[in-house]
Amino acid sequence: MSVKQIVQVINPNTSQAMTATIGAVARAVAAPGTEILAVCPSQGVPSIEGHFDEAIAAIGVLEQIKAGRELGVSGHVIACFGDPGLLAARELAQGPVIGIAEAAMHMATMVATRFSIVTTLPRTLIIARHLLQQYGFEQHCAALHAIDLPVLALEDGTGLAQEKVREGCIQAKKRDGSGAIVLGCGGMATLARELTLELGIPVIDGVGAAVKMVESLVALGLSTSKHGDLDYPVRKTLSGQFASLKLD
Amino acid sequence: MSVKQIVQVINPNTSQAMTATIGAVARAVAAPGTEILAVCPSQGVPSIEGHFDEAIAAIGVLEQIKAGRELGVSGHVIACFGDPGLLAARELAQGPVIGIAEAAMHMATMVATRFSIVTTLPRTLIIARHLLQQYGFEQHCAALHAIDLPVLALEDGTGLAQEKVREGCIQAKKRDGSGAIVLGCGGMATLARELTLELGIPVIDGVGAAVKMVESLVALGLSTSKHGDLDYPVRKTLSGQFASLKLD
Amino acid sequence: MSVKQIVQVINPNTSQAMTATIGAVARAVAAPGTEILAVCPSQGVPSIEGHFDEAIAAIGVLEQIKAGRELGVSGHVIACFGDPGLLAARELAQGPVIGIAEAAMHMATMVATRFSIVTTLPRTLIIARHLLQQYGFEQHCAALHAIDLPVLALEDGTGLAQEKVREGCIQAKKRDGSGAIVLGCGGMATLARELTLELGIPVIDGVGAAVKMVESLVALGLSTSKHGDLDYPVRKTLSGQFASLKLD
Amino acid sequence: MSVKQIVQVINPNTSQAMTATIGAVARAVAAPGTEILAVCPSQGVPSIEGHFDEAIAAIGVLEQIKAGRELGVSGHVIACFGDPGLLAARELAQGPVIGIAEAAMHMATMVATRFSIVTTLPRTLIIARHLLQQYGFEQHCAALHAIDLPVLALEDGTGLAQEKVREGCIQAKKRDGSGAIVLGCGGMATLARELTLELGIPVIDGVGAAVKMVESLVALGLSTSKHGDLDYPVRKTLSGQFASLKLD
Amino acid sequence: MSVKQIVQVINPNTSQAMTATIGAVARAVAAPGTEILAVCPSQGVPSIEGHFDEAIAAIGVLEQIKAGRELGVSGHVIACFGDPGLLAARELAQGPVIGIAEAAMHMATMVATRFSIVTTLPRTLIIARHLLQQYGFEQHCAALHAIDLPVLALEDGTGLAQEKVREGCIQAKKRDGSGAIVLGCGGMATLARELTLELGIPVIDGVGAAVKMVESLVALGLSTSKHGDLDYPVRKTLSGQFASLKLD
Amino acid sequence: MSVKQIVQVINPNTSQAMTATIGAVARAVAAPGTEILAVCPSQGVPSIEGHFDEAIAAIGVLEQIKAGRELGVSGHVIACFGDPGLLAARELAQGPVIGIAEAAMHMATMVATRFSIVTTLPRTLIIARHLLQQYGFEQHCAALHAIDLPVLALEDGTGLAQEKVREGCIQAKKRDGSGAIVLGCGGMATLARELTLELGIPVIDGVGAAVKMVESLVALGLSTSKHGDLDYPVRKTLSGQFASLKLD
Repeated sequence: MSVKQIVQVINPNTSQAMTATIGAVARAVAAPGTEILAVCPSQGVPSIEGHFDEAIAAIGVLEQIKAGRELGVSGHVIACFGDPGLLAARELAQGPVIGIAEAAMHMATMVATRFSIVTTLPRTLIIARHLLQQYGFEQHCAALHAIDLPVLALEDGTGLAQEKVREGCIQAKKRDGSGAIVLGCGGMATLARELTLELGIPVIDGVGAAVKMVESLVALGLSTSKHGDLDYPVRKTLSGQFASLKLD
Repeated sequence: MSVKQIVQVINPNTSQAMTATIGAVARAVAAPGTEILAVCPSQGVPSIEGHFDEAIAAIGVLEQIKAGRELGVSGHVIACFGDPGLLAARELAQGPVIGIAEAAMHMATMVATRFSIVTTLPRTLIIARHLLQQYGFEQHCAALHAIDLPVLALEDGTGLAQEKVREGCIQAKKRDGSGAIVLGCGGMATLARELTLELGIPVIDGVGAAVKMVESLVALGLSTSKHGDLDYPVRKTLSGQFASLKLD
Repeated sequence: MSVKQIVQVINPNTSQAMTATIGAVARAVAAPGTEILAVCPSQGVPSIEGHFDEAIAAIGVLEQIKAGRELGVSGHVIACFGDPGLLAARELAQGPVIGIAEAAMHMATMVATRFSIVTTLPRTLIIARHLLQQYGFEQHCAALHAIDLPVLALEDGTGLAQEKVREGCIQAKKRDGSGAIVLGCGGMATLARELTLELGIPVIDGVGAAVKMVESLVALGLSTSKHGDLDYPVRKTLSGQFASLKLD
Repeated sequence: MSVKQIVQVINPNTSQAMTATIGAVARAVAAPGTEILAVCPSQGVPSIEGHFDEAIAAIGVLEQIKAGRELGVSGHVIACFGDPGLLAARELAQGPVIGIAEAAMHMATMVATRFSIVTTLPRTLIIARHLLQQYGFEQHCAALHAIDLPVLALEDGTGLAQEKVREGCIQAKKRDGSGAIVLGCGGMATLARELTLELGIPVIDGVGAAVKMVESLVALGLSTSKHGDLDYPVRKTLSGQFASLKLD
Repeated sequence: MSVKQIVQVINPNTSQAMTATIGAVARAVAAPGTEILAVCPSQGVPSIEGHFDEAIAAIGVLEQIKAGRELGVSGHVIACFGDPGLLAARELAQGPVIGIAEAAMHMATMVATRFSIVTTLPRTLIIARHLLQQYGFEQHCAALHAIDLPVLALEDGTGLAQEKVREGCIQAKKRDGSGAIVLGCGGMATLARELTLELGIPVIDGVGAAVKMVESLVALGLSTSKHGDLDYPVRKTLSGQFASLKLD
Repeated sequence: MSVKQIVQVINPNTSQAMTATIGAVARAVAAPGTEILAVCPSQGVPSIEGHFDEAIAAIGVLEQIKAGRELGVSGHVIACFGDPGLLAARELAQGPVIGIAEAAMHMATMVATRFSIVTTLPRTLIIARHLLQQYGFEQHCAALHAIDLPVLALEDGTGLAQEKVREGCIQAKKRDGSGAIVLGCGGMATLARELTLELGIPVIDGVGAAVKMVESLVALGLSTSKHGDLDYPVRKTLSGQFASLKLD
């Protein structure tokens, strides 16, 4: 770990402000030897609030994975709570790829017996539910909550969304019997530390969690398995706008 | 059902030959009042054999869903066994959207207590496994098999892949104790009828199954729910190559 | 599908009025080439509100399946929400057999991410729960509700039960976060279309759904698998009142 | 327990020989104060090898439950491995009702971490699979095996079926890593003790297990709950051959 | 069963009062030929209210299992609702070992379709949840409740805790739709009979249930499997305070 | 992370040799600012090969957790693949506590879609199975294998056990279709790196994985939740040999 390494943090939406926020959170927890490269796609959606948005964002994630790989980064973080394009990204990448929902959920199960999730719009709850099922954590999640504000309300400077997240966490602690809370949006990353202190329970941001997970895997010499399911994509012609995704 | 209706069958890969094959299979089972519109994306991947390919194909599916919607089609079929972009397509569509894996698996559970799946490359098995979990059919699937040939081998005219599918089905019937077999690739659609007759058990092709499912939903006045999770995408700026996906 | 085909719709209880209602709903959605044969057992229970009633009804279902088979019908619908005798009927039948709970639940998963159920007596909820588990849809059902009126209240002409169903659906939409509602009784079949329109979400009746499912399977050349678990019953002496169930 | 009590053991098929065998096994394990009343329906199927047979047998079970209840028996055993009519019988009965598959499976989980099942015809395996799911023991069952002989081969006096059961148990012990074996047919009840001794692992017969379970519940003052789901059947007219099932 | 047999009932905490209470309840349900030997560890925790307490109690359970085995008891009951040390005890024991949570939960599933649990401190709910998962009864438990009083409040002579348990059971019956209630603490054992009568539904105490289960297994000639997972512990040096646990 | 921190690595068995090995592996992956404190209980079992051994080891783990806490360590690793005493240790600890099975399984799901486990004695497989269920990874584990040698064979200097592990991993890669392998014993920790290189897939040792997980949680300011289930043990008298476990 004494060698310099780069962890690429990909904000799958096109919001520069959110990319900067996420980058700052990542840097705050990164190990001394880790450089954070915070990026977002040049094209796509300004926020991700459904499956349609995720499908578009997944392409942006893949473009950035390819770019990161060409830069020789050590690993990648997908910094949107739906972990869009995660398995596709793992196929394309050489290093480890970690989603922030994945990282936060995994860590939550290690500090509490059950956790709650607080996210943005109600329609994104189904995405979190499906991830819980896919990752194996249905029994570990006590309840899911939505503050009913769009993602970008977290960037509007009024603090309203932040206050709603705080209230949501307080309610979740009180009512769900959960020992920890998972913040359900990359844009909430800055709130984790202070809410952890205020509430007296682990309030977990996936951005930081994912950065540490990538660092850990790299330190252990572990990377995405290239045997079988997650092997590099089968070589084939990618036509039109997708041609640039092709591996050399 | 006496009114003319159009069912759009979207081949998510860019193979014209496979699109034609799939269209023909769809037409063969369509009701008298149903017109089949078989399409494929103008850009993308020539075959879909992993999550990376699926992520690209999902964009092509969305473009076609939008086009189909503007044409006023009654419903849509996603004719690739991984059902790429299914939930995103449901957000975008007004009518019902059915994936061929989904349709075939659902129907298999209604004619047999357990079924087997025969697909192409081993690396696509994980996609089928995840769909079984997502759709609720883990307990209904006895086994999954791969013939270990790429998708496009089904279009190479030698009949080798077809023979391997046939052998796979015969083995699956013998060894798995399954009452039905689900064909795990849109390119196998033409084989279902003859294998059903030869093997004496239901061998199910999802393309035909999905067309009938769309027709059924339309006849019942049922369409994709626009309340909550699958509501139209939140209106926002789609930048760059994705601008054309925006709903008017 | 241009050939005339008969779909037998079996009301497992002995209510002639409900049989007529169910038959009418079936006819309203049937394809042009489909003739609906609505029948009920000559002996049994006037309504089905528990496992005891179901056990009796299952014999009536089998008698009708045998009669239908001798008439050469193309397929069978079991028009009671508990799907009584479904697997036994599949053993006896040559064509496909579809239960209305099964059909409605399957279709609900294709138009919404999660659905609610509205049924009659609370004691029948456990039957629906077990079906959800058997069919694989536990994760797809957000909540179950009972209007706490017996099945035959739907036939008393006052409209009270219908109004309670309507209220139940409205509450379910509001509170459960479900995108669709499944009507949990064959006697509610007439309400689906109007409630779908009023509530603006798919409200699904299993009678219509099952008819379309049978038509679909027939069109696809798929029938109940006779390999293994659902093969015709082992030939043996059926004594006493059951002698008439014997296949020739 | 010093008072005399009757446990009714219902063989759901009409085989007098098997009824006698089952009665003898039940008596061999019954407590001093327990009288075993072994009965079978006067009408029905001579053996139960599928869902169709089970549907018929369930009516016989209900008739016997009613008769037993009128005699004032303390509890009931359903002595067929599919536990046909179990929940219907619980509705009708006042005392506890235990199925032999249920009893054997429950006991197996208390003496071993995982168990195997050895049954008769392969087509009955699906019934056992569904019971494992319904009772919650999918993870506790390592494997299911069928000797591929019909139920009545156990009564043919040649000992062939018994030898096949023995071989099946020996193989199951060797291959499955199971600590116990559940015998999957009431007709195998006589084999449990000797196989337990020969194999050195618990080989469990459900008939004996169910008798002890009924005795236990009675001694504890516990009976089938009449609150909610398993309350007595709703009073209604039972027509035709079913009239005799009506509670007074 | 005419031979005298000893069932050892181990209270895993060191409370003599609770040991006496549990012993009395066990004796009240024991068969004529059964002698109850109620014991508790000489060292350990006075009550068990968490995983830490359970870890300590497990050693006490093992010491008593060893002592009981040397006395030649027929079987063992672990009389704490978390079933502490159950699988370790099964390795050490020759006879059957039954936990009271296990016994109560199993029996509850045989008299009702779903049950509720009423226990002491909220922090012990997670232990019950994990047992439900381990035993396979997640789908059979409708809800868990805690009276929010420590275990020893059941021994303080005021009756306050007992009244809270009673209220908890009444609420659970009313709200959960459960047909039976499982008492979630050995110290509640005396309440089961009267609450069963007062509430009119089975209220199940695991102490009595476990005694009957041990008697049943013994009568059937079934004991803990010594093949594989639960074989006697591998012989090795046990150092320090644990030396006394060594089998001779 | 620039401050010096101590991660306590607890070998739950009393083998000094294995403690040294585990400590060395932990040091090899620790961050520059991390000091590894490798310890083992002064009393207990020399190796852990079943539930009985685990129960004893859990007490040793708790003693060490208490000692580590008094030393002010930042977090704790339980370095035995059964994660003995994990939840009890979390109650007692202030900092995070990670088991090596837990850490390895979590990481395996992030680098592969499915993994295999290779462990020592067959009787320990059930412990791994239960952990998979508890952690949520049943669907992520393709197969479990045992080399059928005791734990201490890994310390006998012959290399035989190591060769068997290697062969087990090679077979697992070939047959299971897994993308990664989890080594199922702390004593195998030294093999991970070389097998990862030789096999070309991630072969994961939990000791290293757990150390990185503790470091990650500490860096993120996350610790075991003290709200609810994992709060410090309720204060009570611990008698006899357990008195020393009491928190001040």
